[in-house]
Amino acid sequence: MAQKPSIPKGTRDFNPVEMARRNYIFDTIRNVFYLFGFQQIETPAMENLSTLMGKYGEEGDKLLFKILNSGDFLRGVDPTLIESGDCPKIAPKLCEKGLRYDLTVPFARFVVMHRNDLSFPFKRFQIQPVWRADRPQKGRYREFYQCDADIIGSDSLLNEIDLLQLIDEVFHRLGIRITIKLNNRKILAGIAELAGEPDKITDITVAIDKIDKIGLENVKADLRERGLSESAINTIAPVITLSGTTEERLQKLSEILNGNEAGAKGLEELKEVIEGTDRLGLKANLELDVSLARGLNYYTGTIIEVKARDVEIGSITGGGRYDNLTGVFGLPGVSGVGISFGADRIYDVLNALDLYPSNIAGTAKVMFTNFGVKEAERSLEIIKKLRESGIAAEIYPDAAKIKKQMGRADALGIPFVAIVGETELQNECVTLKNMSTGEQRQLDVCGLIDALS
Amino acid sequence: MAQKPSIPKGTRDFNPVEMARRNYIFDTIRNVFYLFGFQQIETPAMENLSTLMGKYGEEGDKLLFKILNSGDFLRGVDPTLIESGDCPKIAPKLCEKGLRYDLTVPFARFVVMHRNDLSFPFKRFQIQPVWRADRPQKGRYREFYQCDADIIGSDSLLNEIDLLQLIDEVFHRLGIRITIKLNNRKILAGIAELAGEPDKITDITVAIDKIDKIGLENVKADLRERGLSESAINTIAPVITLSGTTEERLQKLSEILNGNEAGAKGLEELKEVIEGTDRLGLKANLELDVSLARGLNYYTGTIIEVKARDVEIGSITGGGRYDNLTGVFGLPGVSGVGISFGADRIYDVLNALDLYPSNIAGTAKVMFTNFGVKEAERSLEIIKKLRESGIAAEIYPDAAKIKKQMGRADALGIPFVAIVGETELQNECVTLKNMSTGEQRQLDVCGLIDALS
Repeated sequence: MAQKPSIPKGTRDFNPVEMARRNYIFDTIRNVFYLFGFQQIETPAMENLSTLMGKYGEEGDKLLFKILNSGDFLRGVDPTLIESGDCPKIAPKLCEKGLRYDLTVPFARFVVMHRNDLSFPFKRFQIQPVWRADRPQKGRYREFYQCDADIIGSDSLLNEIDLLQLIDEVFHRLGIRITIKLNNRKILAGIAELAGEPDKITDITVAIDKIDKIGLENVKADLRERGLSESAINTIAPVITLSGTTEERLQKLSEILNGNEAGAKGLEELKEVIEGTDRLGLKANLELDVSLARGLNYYTGTIIEVKARDVEIGSITGGGRYDNLTGVFGLPGVSGVGISFGADRIYDVLNALDLYPSNIAGTAKVMFTNFGVKEAERSLEIIKKLRESGIAAEIYPDAAKIKKQMGRADALGIPFVAIVGETELQNECVTLKNMSTGEQRQLDVCGLIDALS
Repeated sequence: MAQKPSIPKGTRDFNPVEMARRNYIFDTIRNVFYLFGFQQIETPAMENLSTLMGKYGEEGDKLLFKILNSGDFLRGVDPTLIESGDCPKIAPKLCEKGLRYDLTVPFARFVVMHRNDLSFPFKRFQIQPVWRADRPQKGRYREFYQCDADIIGSDSLLNEIDLLQLIDEVFHRLGIRITIKLNNRKILAGIAELAGEPDKITDITVAIDKIDKIGLENVKADLRERGLSESAINTIAPVITLSGTTEERLQKLSEILNGNEAGAKGLEELKEVIEGTDRLGLKANLELDVSLARGLNYYTGTIIEVKARDVEIGSITGGGRYDNLTGVFGLPGVSGVGISFGADRIYDVLNALDLYPSNIAGTAKVMFTNFGVKEAERSLEIIKKLRESGIAAEIYPDAAKIKKQMGRADALGIPFVAIVGETELQNECVTLKNMSTGEQRQLDVCGLIDALS
């Protein structure tokens, strides 16, 4: 029985037009990574579950795609455990491997396994799909690409400055106007300490983040509900209402954080990154945002987030500095800083703004029609010459009706059709039709190469 | 407790040097695919198990990596089935999805799902990893890439001629000298029919294939063991000892197959492909090989196989014509012809012959040393200008000992080191060191850009 095929929910096929657009994004990012001296690695889609489990929290463990062991996968599994029906406990007994959930944990595993072959500081980039058993929804998929670049084994803030330049260059090339938001985890820690609530750093950050939407009084009420004292709230209030230019904000923060060691250090780092960036110049807007806290438990210094200025969408790139990439795999003290480009959201932004260059269609530049054996033979000879000149060319393989042949070129968006019929055979020429203007010209082979180059 | 990390057997990490080499292969193949008018698609790593099961034989079903269902995967599974311990029967109850085993079945599924959006003839290429739970051994991995190109919806032999040109171009660009072996399934069918053993086509082909290794008498003995009569063996013998030029072989085959419809048709097709190819010219050797039978049950016409001439290794590319790509998914009559490049073996051949171009290292072209704040600031300004000129450049991020900095450039194979020290700051210049010759030059920024372009 023939079955009606489908694909797993949350996954996607990419057709040629989508592929051309995605390749344009990936190629742009990859070229800038290379330009900045990053080196590519790849890791297997499957990792041992022991590498993945426990790295993304309890929720993350559930979202890992686990691969059933081959062969007699029930052998040695306690039957009473199976009878218990406790799936989260049973799964690791049936599965040794899982699909990559992000690129960071595999990178950490890579660094530990290959540390004797690596030269530090190590600047790596990685562009590969990851898989998460999340509930699929608009813009959220179970298979999607991450594009990560990290520098590890260096505490220098030059790395942050360089990554900001890199972000700037990628989005400049893509034609997307962006705002880069900047923060430092130590500033958040300092504020929480000054408020006498060092453990409530997350609550405080979440509250600060709402100021634009709900206003100061509601933020204060929110903080009260989260158990902060009035005096703590009064300490935090000036941070919440921070305004003015970056310079003014830095000045005000400096006054607020005065005397707090962590906060002052964070501020100093932030200043150094901003000054270094200003010195080199940036096409993007750079904005200090003390509410920015991405992956708070992971980052320990600089925090970076990128927003598109002309489309309403979540952050399209993010990253920051971390202290301990590989400790969980037995290699302590590997610090670094990294960024991750959100390819799927960047794709959505480019689509929304229609920013793709016109020459990325991913088709041949010219299709030759086919009027029969003699004409096809001549066409193939010419096609060979075109290809030798680097021009993507093809022939319609069957001597079908001309309407059908032209229809295919039209449907694919092939920009030119070349016709070799009886007349052209006699005159040793080719008729070239521009598919967008309809214009037709008779050319010899040299003229054809010129016209299509 | 820190764990010592590892990766699943049969999988691989790729370091920057390996990535640069692999990208060189994939980029070469992709560029030629585009040049010939093929369009790229991608399909998800995970397919529904119903799409994959039963497509690769019983053995193939076992080699599929199956993905455990999320959540309460035991719910609704008959406990007596679990108790039976019949893993091959239990697995499909626990798993709805599996990893792609090849690119052909997902392509067929893609064509059926998207047939209303496709324009035929459809020329697609696809370069993606596939996964097989095979026993890992030298040169055989559980995760490896396939690079496939197919033309579907056309019976024209021009497609075969074009694919042979494409193969020729790929290996010419890679610098690998090859022999392309050619056969036609209908010729094999014809021989089996003439021998009165149409069902023994596989036995006959396997026997013919051994002639070089074991000699005619042993092949005959082999055929006897496989149950062929003496008269059948006498009919086949001239095919086994086919020799001479391609023209002579075609002539002899024509005599042998005289009067057999399938055989004559196969021979006619083969002649047309060879003549068309000769007309256009081929850098590779083209060889008629009647023992060639790759995937016999799948191919129905032309069969293609590529061998490297200068390295002892299995076939590095193969393909052929098929009649019914999508029938199993309810869409009959989709015929086509395709080829698949074996990226891992091509990688081995290039390594064995050391055929990589020197400029594919995948590092920055120049690393700036770091002597401190002032020097680094000046270096970053220059680096920005280099990058604007398309030159991949970076700075050592810390003011570490110079030996350590130079050591990194050396280890990564970065071809040039640029030094901005006190003297260079004063003189507004840069000292550029060629890392392979040791030569040093003092240059201004324009001179530096020229030297590195």
